[in-house]
Parts: sequence; C-alpha cells; structure tokens
Amino acid sequence: MLIAAAMLAMSAMPGMAGSVKSPNGNLELTFNINQGCAMYSLTYKGKDVVKPSRLGLELAKDKHASKGMEETDLMDHFTIKDEKVTSFDETWQPVWGETKDIRNHYNEYTVTLEQQLEKKHYPKDPNTKGMWVEPQIRVIIIRFRVYDDGIGFRYEFPQQQELNYFLIKDEHTEFAMAGDHTAWWLPGDYDTQEQETQETRLSEIRGRMKEAVNWDNSSVAVFSPTGVQTSLQMRTDDGLYINIHEAACLDYATMHLELVDAQTKALSTKLGGGSNACTPNPKPSPYPLPAPLTFISHLTPDATGLKGAMQTPCETPWRTVMVSDDARDMLASNLILNLNEPCKIEDTSWIHPTKYCGVWWEMIVGKSNWHYTDDFPSIRLDQIDWNSVKPHGRHAANNEKVKRYIDFAAKNGLDEVLVEGWNVGWEDWANHWKRDVFDFVTPYPDFDIKMLNDYAHSKGVKILMHHETSSSTQNYERHIKEAYELMNKYGYDAVKTGYVGDIIPRGDHHYSQSMNNHYLYVIREAAKHHIMVNSHEATRPTGLCRTYPNLVGGESARGTEYEAFGGNRPDHTCILPFTRLQGGPMDYTPGIFETQLSTWSKNTSWVRTTLAGQLALYVTMYSPLQMAADLPENYERFDDAFQFIRDVACDWDDSKYLEAEPADYITVARKAKGTDNWFIGGKCDENGHQSVIKLDFLDKGKKYDCTIYADAKDAHYEKNPKAYVITKKVVKAGDTLKLTEAAGGGFAISLLAK
Amino acid sequence: MLIAAAMLAMSAMPGMAGSVKSPNGNLELTFNINQGCAMYSLTYKGKDVVKPSRLGLELAKDKHASKGMEETDLMDHFTIKDEKVTSFDETWQPVWGETKDIRNHYNEYTVTLEQQLEKKHYPKDPNTKGMWVEPQIRVIIIRFRVYDDGIGFRYEFPQQQELNYFLIKDEHTEFAMAGDHTAWWLPGDYDTQEQETQETRLSEIRGRMKEAVNWDNSSVAVFSPTGVQTSLQMRTDDGLYINIHEAACLDYATMHLELVDAQTKALSTKLGGGSNACTPNPKPSPYPLPAPLTFISHLTPDATGLKGAMQTPCETPWRTVMVSDDARDMLASNLILNLNEPCKIEDTSWIHPTKYCGVWWEMIVGKSNWHYTDDFPSIRLDQIDWNSVKPHGRHAANNEKVKRYIDFAAKNGLDEVLVEGWNVGWEDWANHWKRDVFDFVTPYPDFDIKMLNDYAHSKGVKILMHHETSSSTQNYERHIKEAYELMNKYGYDAVKTGYVGDIIPRGDHHYSQSMNNHYLYVIREAAKHHIMVNSHEATRPTGLCRTYPNLVGGESARGTEYEAFGGNRPDHTCILPFTRLQGGPMDYTPGIFETQLSTWSKNTSWVRTTLAGQLALYVTMYSPLQMAADLPENYERFDDAFQFIRDVACDWDDSKYLEAEPADYITVARKAKGTDNWFIGGKCDENGHQSVIKLDFLDKGKKYDCTIYADAKDAHYEKNPKAYVITKKVVKAGDTLKLTEAAGGGFAISLLAK
Repeated sequence: MLIAAAMLAMSAMPGMAGSVKSPNGNLELTFNINQGCAMYSLTYKGKDVVKPSRLGLELAKDKHASKGMEETDLMDHFTIKDEKVTSFDETWQPVWGETKDIRNHYNEYTVTLEQQLEKKHYPKDPNTKGMWVEPQIRVIIIRFRVYDDGIGFRYEFPQQQELNYFLIKDEHTEFAMAGDHTAWWLPGDYDTQEQETQETRLSEIRGRMKEAVNWDNSSVAVFSPTGVQTSLQMRTDDGLYINIHEAACLDYATMHLELVDAQTKALSTKLGGGSNACTPNPKPSPYPLPAPLTFISHLTPDATGLKGAMQTPCETPWRTVMVSDDARDMLASNLILNLNEPCKIEDTSWIHPTKYCGVWWEMIVGKSNWHYTDDFPSIRLDQIDWNSVKPHGRHAANNEKVKRYIDFAAKNGLDEVLVEGWNVGWEDWANHWKRDVFDFVTPYPDFDIKMLNDYAHSKGVKILMHHETSSSTQNYERHIKEAYELMNKYGYDAVKTGYVGDIIPRGDHHYSQSMNNHYLYVIREAAKHHIMVNSHEATRPTGLCRTYPNLVGGESARGTEYEAFGGNRPDHTCILPFTRLQGGPMDYTPGIFETQLSTWSKNTSWVRTTLAGQLALYVTMYSPLQMAADLPENYERFDDAFQFIRDVACDWDDSKYLEAEPADYITVARKAKGTDNWFIGGKCDENGHQSVIKLDFLDKGKKYDCTIYADAKDAHYEKNPKAYVITKKVVKAGDTLKLTEAAGGGFAISLLAK
Repeated sequence: MLIAAAMLAMSAMPGMAGSVKSPNGNLELTFNINQGCAMYSLTYKGKDVVKPSRLGLELAKDKHASKGMEETDLMDHFTIKDEKVTSFDETWQPVWGETKDIRNHYNEYTVTLEQQLEKKHYPKDPNTKGMWVEPQIRVIIIRFRVYDDGIGFRYEFPQQQELNYFLIKDEHTEFAMAGDHTAWWLPGDYDTQEQETQETRLSEIRGRMKEAVNWDNSSVAVFSPTGVQTSLQMRTDDGLYINIHEAACLDYATMHLELVDAQTKALSTKLGGGSNACTPNPKPSPYPLPAPLTFISHLTPDATGLKGAMQTPCETPWRTVMVSDDARDMLASNLILNLNEPCKIEDTSWIHPTKYCGVWWEMIVGKSNWHYTDDFPSIRLDQIDWNSVKPHGRHAANNEKVKRYIDFAAKNGLDEVLVEGWNVGWEDWANHWKRDVFDFVTPYPDFDIKMLNDYAHSKGVKILMHHETSSSTQNYERHIKEAYELMNKYGYDAVKTGYVGDIIPRGDHHYSQSMNNHYLYVIREAAKHHIMVNSHEATRPTGLCRTYPNLVGGESARGTEYEAFGGNRPDHTCILPFTRLQGGPMDYTPGIFETQLSTWSKNTSWVRTTLAGQLALYVTMYSPLQMAADLPENYERFDDAFQFIRDVACDWDDSKYLEAEPADYITVARKAKGTDNWFIGGKCDENGHQSVIKLDFLDKGKKYDCTIYADAKDAHYEKNPKAYVITKKVVKAGDTLKLTEAAGGGFAISLLAK
C-alpha cells in the first residue's frame, strides 16, 4: 500500500549539492559535485559512515563504436542538471519470508547529471579535410534511497543518442571508510564463495589474504591482495555496524570490493588478451587513487576482461550500505528486498516453503557415490549403453534407498526427498572442459523415475530434482526445456541446480554479467514450468527472490558439506546471517546429528557444533527451504531431538532478533505462518553464550507448551557434541528463559499455543 | 557397396617407415619416424607434392590435469608400434549432388605410434618424501587415405588413462611445398571469409597481406602476415594443381595455414590472457621452424586463446591434399565428401533441392530495409509494442510485397520465397554486444505470417525462413526450439541462418571449436524438425553435407551481395569452385540481370559479369539451392533469358567438367536428375574465353532441343553487360559447340531430350 510519495524540501542549494535524511533522521546522505566529479557521503547519528567518495564508471572502447564517442568515461566533467527529493512508504507481503509484512519506507534523492564531452566528427565528404570537434551532452541519473537502516543507490542511464550502447571497463564506486574497522570478509574471487570468513582489521586484509584462500578449491580466481566479497560486514570501534552489499543484480556483473590501503600502488586490472573483439583501454586507470581505507567496486570480468555490455535505458544494481548501532538491525533489515522489484510471477500458488531430506549426505561424506560405474576412464553420453555397463555397487540413487528416504519423509512430515546422482553422466563431470556432460533426462538403470515418483506421491511426498550443470551452462540451456518438461511429467516441483567447476564456455566466470543472466534465465524458465529453484555455486543473492519468489534457496557460501571436508569453524553460522543471508535464504542443509562422521564412514571430519546447535540453525539460518541432512538411521538414534525438526516451521508471520553479535551469537524468535506457535533458536561460537530471553512477544493471555532442546551442561562441540537435554514446561507472555549455550553449541525452543 | 577391404603388402620395413600408393599408382604417401618425430611426404607421378613434413600437436596445461601429465606435447618421442595397409572401394548415392553415384576408393595406411613420456608421481602418503618418475606409454594413431586425386589423413586418439582429456595449444601439421607455387588465397582470419581471393606466389603472400584485407569488414581477425585460409588452391610451375583443405570438421576448430617464409622468425601465437581458467604454456613454441615454403596448421582459438578441448576417444578432422596435373580433377573430386561419415539422417524424404527467389536484393542494394521503424536509438524486444510504433515506410517484408514475390515464384516454377526482415529486432542488431537481439517468432506488424504462408501454399510455393542470429549464438540456442516449432506450424521447411558480427559470448570466434559445435547443433536440431539449413557467415564447409544432407547450402565466402558493395572481381566465380566449393555447395545467389544497380536504386555499384555470365553460374556453381536473386521486374524485362532459370535443374545424375583453369574459366555439363536433359555452363574471367564443347556425353541416338544463351559479340562485363543472344537448334551426341565468352562473360545451354 502506497502511503506517501510527496516532494520534500531539499536541504542544500540546487545545482551544487543535495542531501537527504532517513525517515527517522538518523542517516544523512550528502551528494555534491567536486571539480566535475560526483561525490557522496553518509553519516549515522552524526558519525561518518562513508566519507566523501567518488562515483563513476570507466568505459572500454568498442571497436564498432562511433569514432571518438563511447570511450569517454563516465567519471568526470559532470554538472547537476536536476535534483529531486521524494518520500515513499509502502507495506508489501512477500510470498514467503521472515515476516508477513515488509515496510518499504525511504526518502529518495535523485540527481540528474550532465556530462560535457567532445564529439569528434570525421566528415564523409572527401572534400572536407580533417575533422572537427563539437561539444555534446550526455546525461546519467544517480538515485539514492535513504532508509532508517541504510542506503541504496544506483546509476541510471536514460536512452540517448550519446549513450546508446557502452562497454564497462570497471565501475568506480568508492566507499571511503572512516576508520580501520573490524571486518568479516571473504577473498574477492570470480568463481568461489566457499572460503572461510576472515575476521581482521581493514588494514590487515592484505597480510591475511594468502592464508585466507584455500587454493585447492576447484575454482579459485582471486584478483587482488585486498579484494573482498560482499556482503561485507564491519564493526567500528565506536560501535557502528556497517554492511556493504548490492541489491537487484540482474543483467550485470557481480560486484567485489578492492580496498585501497597504504601499500596500494594501482587498482587491479584484468584486461582481456584472449580476443581482439574489443579493445579495452590498455593503459592503467587514469584516475587518482582515493585515500587508504577506501573500497572501490571491482566487477567480475568476462572472458575478454571486460565487465559489462550495456544498452540504454538501463541501470546498475543498487549499491547498499546498511548501518546501525545495534547489530540486531543488520539481521532484521529488509533493505535488500525492498530495493528489488515487486513479484513478477502472477500466480504464485505453486510456490511453497519446503522441508526435505535427501540422498546426499552419505555421498558428501564419501560412503556412496553419485556415479554408477568405474568401467571407463571417461564417458560420452551418446556412446554408452547404460544397461550393459558394470555397476560398481556404491551408487546411492537406487530404487531401494530412495524408497527408504521416501518412507522416512512420509513418516516424519517432510515434504520432499532430494535425490542426487539419479541421472547419467556422473562418471566424469566437472573440470574436464566437457561440454556435453549431462542430459538431465536419462536416469541410471537402478533409478526407476516413474515408479519412484508414483511411490512418493502415493505417500504425499515429492522428489526434489537435481540438475548439476558442472558449469557447462551452454549444455544446460540446450537441455533445459526437455529437462523441465520431464519434471512436469513426473510431478517434480523443485530443482536444486549446481555449478561446480570452471564455466563452459571457457574463460567466463561464475559471477560475470553473462552468468548472472544465465541464472536469471534459469529462474524464469523454471517459473514458466512452475518449478522452484535452489541454486548451488551460483552468484551470491541480491534479493531477487522478491521479484522471483520461485528462487527459494541457494548456496553461494560454505555450506554444511564442508563439515565433511575438514569442518566449518564454530562461529561460521554466527557470521552467515550478517553476510551471505543478506541477499536471500541459503540452503545450508543443517541437522547433522551424528557429528562424528567416522562412526559410520571412513571420513575423519567432524562437525564443529553440538547437536543442539544443529537444531538452532533451523531458526537462526532463515530459509523457506530446510533440509534434514543427516541419514535416517542417525535421526532414529536421536528421535526425541528430531521432534524439533518435525515441528519447526519454515515460513513465518513474524521474526524477532533478540540477541546478535557477528561471529559470536545470534538468537531469534519466529512466529510460524498462520499459527500462534513460536520457535526460538540460539547459536553461538566456540566461546559459548548465556542467553536471556524475555517472552514479551507472545500473545498476552495465551499459554504455550514450551519444549527446550538445550546443550547438556558438559556439552562441547568437540569433546561432547551429542549431549543435549530436552525440557518441557508451560510458559506465557512475560516469562523469561535463561539458557546456557555450550562452546559451539546452541538451543532450539518450540512454543506451541495451547 | 563394399567391394574390397583386404590387407595389402607394405612397401617398407615395419617399425621404421611405411608407404602406400593410390589405387592408380599416381600418388605415393610415405611415412616415417625421424629422430622421434612423425613425418610424411607425398609424390604425384614421381614429383614432390609435399616434401617431408612433421605431424603433431602442442598441448596446453589444464590446471585440473593430473600433475606432470597432460602438458606433454604430442610432438616427439614417437616410435611405430603397428602399421596396417588396407584397401577400400565402395560406391554410394548422395541424397543430392553433382552425380548420382560417388565412388569412394582408396588405399589406407594406418600407423599406431607410441610416445614415451615421463610421468611424475606425487605420493599421497605423507611419509614418502619427494616424487618419483616412471616411464609411461601414450598411443595415438595417424590414418592416411590415399585416393587417385589426393590424400586425407587425421590424428586419432584412443581412450586411455594417459590421454583422457587434453587441451590443444595448436596443431602442428606441416605441408612443405616443393616450390614457390602460384596460390589463390584468402587472408587467414578467425571471423571472416568474405575477402577477395588473392593470386600470388607463396613468397609474395607476406607482401600482399595488408592490401588483401578489407579492414572495414565487420569481423576482421587476421592473425599472421602469412596466414591463409583453406581450401587453398595452388598451381606449380610444372603443371600440378594442389589443393589443401580439411574434411569432417565437427567438434574441432577450423584450420588455417601459416606459411613459413624467409622472414618468419616464429609462429604466430595467440595465447589467452582473458581468463585464468587455464594456463596455456606462455613460452613460444619450442619446436624448430621448418624450411621456408612450408605451411603449418593454425587452429582458430577460443576466448582464452586455446584451440580445443578434447576427450578421448576422438580424432581430428581429415587434413586433405588434392593433387592432379589436370585442373578439372580439382573440380570433379569427391575426396572431401568421401572422407565424411555416411548420412546420419534416416528419413531424408523431406530434403529437396530448391530454386527460390526472395525479398532480399532490394535490401542489399539499399532501396528498402530489414527494419521497420526509425523511432528509437535502440530497441529492447521486451519493451516495445510494435503495433504502436511509427513505421518508416521502407520495410520490405510487407504483406503486399511478399505476395508479389509468391506470385512471381508460382508463375515461374520457383519452389520457395525467402523473406528477410520479417521478424522484429532489425532496428539494432549486429555488433552492439546485444545478446537478446531477435526472438525468431515475432513478425513485424505488416507481415501476416499465417495469411502469407496460406497464400503461398495455395499456389504451391513455400516461404523460406530467415534466422539472422547476429552471432548471438546463446540467444539463438535459447530460442531455437520455439523458432523451429513455429516453422513446423506454418509449413516452412528451410531456414537461412546468419552470423553477422562479433560472436556473443564475447571473445569467441566464428571458426572456433565451440562455434563449429554450434553450427552442428543447429543442423541437428533442424533435422529433428525436418528443416533444411542454409547457413550464412558460418564456418567454411568440410563436406558435412554428406552426413547431414539437410545442410543444403551455405555462404562462407564473398557472395553476390558484394556486387552491391563495390563489386566482385570478374574472375571471382572462376576461383570459388576450386576453393570454397570444395567443402560443400554455396548459396551464391546468382541471377542479377540488371547489372547496373543505379538504374533502379541509388547504389552506384555494378555487377562484374555479363547477363549471360549470370546464367552460367546456375551450372558452374553447383548447389542444390539456387536463388533467382534479382527483382521480378528485372526478370520481366529479360523474360527470354529468364527461361534458362525456369528450366535449369539443381540436382544432377551426372556432371562433366569440360574445361577448367583457376581464375580463368570453368565449363561444366550436367545431366538433370531423373531425366535425359543436360545443362551446360561456361564462365570466364575478365579476359574472355573461347569454348569448344564436344557433346560426346549425350546419349547416342537421342536428339536434343538445344538453347544457347550466349554473350553477344560486343558484350563486355563493364561496357555492355546485358548484350546476349539466344540461339536454338537441335543437336546430338558427337556434335561440337563453339562459344565465345565475352570479358567477364559466359554462356548457358539447355539440352532438352526430344
């Protein structure tokens, strides 16, 4: 509902500068032109959040561009042509989410900039010698939206003869930090987001970079010793929480940040030598370096080293800076979602939050396999008769096992069963530059697709489809329609996609403009077929699930699988909600009850949480798609604890962030959709946490059956992880619960209205 | 029919070398190992054709390859493990072609080579320090087929643990020429084949290169001052005709040739800097340069600079050397077709030779347009309401005009009407890096797709579909199924595809492995929908039309359109059959009767042939797809000459090349499929030609109504191009016809059996 969109008075002299405050007045955004350059800054309660920082884009010369034209950068020679301040206040309802209603309330400052440029004319008349120069005007718009919990701003490029198509060499959006903040960061990388988060001062990023990168990851493409990813969470010494990310990254390259520090001599450039199709300016950026502790945007390149091909009218994604003096506001913020377009799917009735289990963990752990045969050094899909090859006997996605998982799901109220490794091609998939790796429609001989779907449906369960592309995106696009038609035929309504390995076509990167377009193409094609998407190894989310709510999940970070690859740090899940989850829910696949993998496999890894801590994740790691990732037999051993997974909702009418500190602890209470039931989760790092929860959010006058799943007194994520205590009592609004979280532990609480 | 496949005696000592002769004994191929290198040579009637030349491939290191393994080049350390000589003789029938039967008769020499390589082992056991080295054996096969008119050879890579996947840095197949031959060549280029052919000595290539390139062509990507394309036609001073090309180029990069001459310091390399996805060996090739006048294969790179990604078992295309002392044998040869696989399309009943006209020439000439409106600097397909935009009034593909062409086709027995510019998106298409440029299903408002197809079908005519991709191949693949379903719905059975402009995804090239895979993907998808393909700006053909006979045409050279862009040289069509047509038919679009374009348009170009010469092309430029390219109103002015186009066949039971000399003249007689009628065409260069035709190929005892369309006495391609004389008489076998071809002229003869 639109409440107000009125003109506000501007606080500064038009033509030179403008500023606008947030609705509650805490944030103030200032914009001005300084020697022809576009500059902005941001304060929170009078404190500097972003010091004066430059805005602009450096362009590449397209060999087909009109002579003398499009290579002029969008960096300077700007004057203000027009300014406008407006206000907006609307409340909307997501298809699924943490709350039933979301308020989108901001003041907006829109500045139209004119850029003077010289246009060289080469006369066609051979009688005219030489060329002449004529001044031309180019127009761009920068739009700032100032919320109570942060800002978003973007560049907009109206359609005009002087800016019709352009190629981006790089975007130069600066974020000048006011101090040497503590930051939780991932190495800037064009192909992986699955590194452990680092906690350092900004000035320490360079020194930490080398050890921050696990070079064994299949797709490492680090670009700078001070490059980091977004969403980047920071904390200042005077108690501000600052988060930089982006919203609505559609047909544009994913943004990284490169920190200018005391040692920076020049910005990283990655210019293409692989093609003569375009000629990026070969000289280094001609623009002066900003002061140390300034981040500069660094976009993901394509195979030629360029960062984007644009056609006006168009705009960049929103660049976002969230800020508060309360860490809980970072988690409760809807700024990223609000900056995305409203839902574009008309009928959303087929989209539903989903709890699922799956034939997955035993393969990740290494006890069984995705592939079916060891007969060949490599395979070609068009040359193998699968019924005549020799199975190696460890193929997990077989009829018997899948039926067992279907039975387990049906018995425990889980909606779907993911089955990975059902389709032929897993014998040799990622990282061989093999284009035709999967066809997405042919099952292995021991997976009877019709029988199993019939069996599942007869028990009220669906099978969750799996499409590993192995990053051969051309191959996936060639097969996508037939693959989705197969899903429709057999009654699948959700697909987990995967992008393991290097991108084919060669030279492209996971987070480039073309790949971001691909991910969106998949989401849209899926929507046409009423299919929900859970995209693994894709680009980090930027709130697109508002516009396309069939994007119900994603990975784009280090998930639970790494607990089988050596382990995640105990503080890992106390960081992700501040960083990865800002853009959208994550398919973290929690619920590993048997934390010692060696008890049932040869894998010597162990999970770095307590069992109670695993339960907490169903509440602290918000997602409409939640997996019970462990084996059925492990859940059967801890059936009393599994009751929480049976009970917990995955869609919510309300959420209250009760306690939060990055990398330390997070406590959140959520009200299950359409009910009076609440669920509370608390998760902490390796230091444990004392949690005091005031139940003042419960309905007054109501009583609740309260079941507490807590760490036992001697629980410890390493020494005694499976020690938990289940307590039941009746509570009411105003009561207080005191809980002790063990090292690497947590708790989960269900409050069922009587 | 397979006649013989017996073992022949080998002529040289096994283990060191082998040789094999052609069935008639004129050609002799010799292979040996010299200091570990694979070498071959070829003689014709005792004369050197290819002097001893090296064979091998240089590989790139894949970052994912086993350590120390796959970067070992396939260049040396070879020994002969096995040799085999066999013979083969078979006659097969093409779906369409120049003759009813094609004999595939060769002797084959197959040599299996072992390569010693050192495999470094990195122990997994941490107690073992360092690594050890173990000799390993890798196996490749080189297969030579020796025909009476040339040879083909290829590399074959059996599946093996030591050679499972590999990346090609470049193929080093040498062709050492025995002298400074005269050559007809095009500049080696990754993206265009539409330059004028150059005629120079080999040693003059370097000096001519700069002027040989028209740098205004939209997609010039020249790689070396001595790089040329295949098929490369040469003539030696002692009267041999030699042609180098390739056959069956499927999922492999198109080959160019780089000449080593006296000035060559190093081979051209084009290594990728655009990606860190793989690390091509950055140092220059470590292998010694061969002697001057040697050609070395140079493959088209991908965006990263690599030339190919291979998975064993696999093989390269055939490298072909045709040789004869009679130039006519170059044209009559079926070597390229024979080296391709037999037809893979089971039901070919829907494939038919086609004569067509089209809404095309008036746009090429510039009188009307493909696009519909001038309202926008650029357009987005998803944002335009086509019914509300203002048409500029020059849109050619409108209902009225298309109906006129349909009427013309029906009246004159033409099978189809090509209509270009029927679908939305032409306002801004190629070379803007615009991915979503066409959807291939939405007509402009003035093109009523249902009405026009109904109208055409009611008159026994089909409309020929046009899909300009503007080289946004990803976009085409995304829409291909819907586009072909639309064709099926409305009864289109043929599509002209186009690849104008730079390839999207950026960095790729028209002739790379991935693009060659794309063209094949299109042919296969079309076949599934019973659609014939005529592919413009695609890679030059290599005989794939044997395997996929729905590939009925292609461009891949400078076509008639250049007569409107300044003109083709008069000798152009006396070269193409020796070069471009070796790999498959060309949609040259002949039949421009009004050679002075300024008589009906503002275009000042003029066609560099006589009108009679245009008629000759329907016979000399073999194609199952022949256009009558001029406007109906121009044909109506020369209706007596147009009778030849009405009469001429485009599928044949037999063909007799009567006279031929590259760039000078070509005379050929062809017997129309399933009839006793013959058609003869003669075309010459700017010097004119006296043709003496002995009709000894006609059936004895039969009489023929002979119509001769000849240049008038004073005809001249520039001064008097439309002066022609039509003569009728009755002839019989054994008669002789003497014809004078004017400068840039030719003649056409129909011989209809009485």
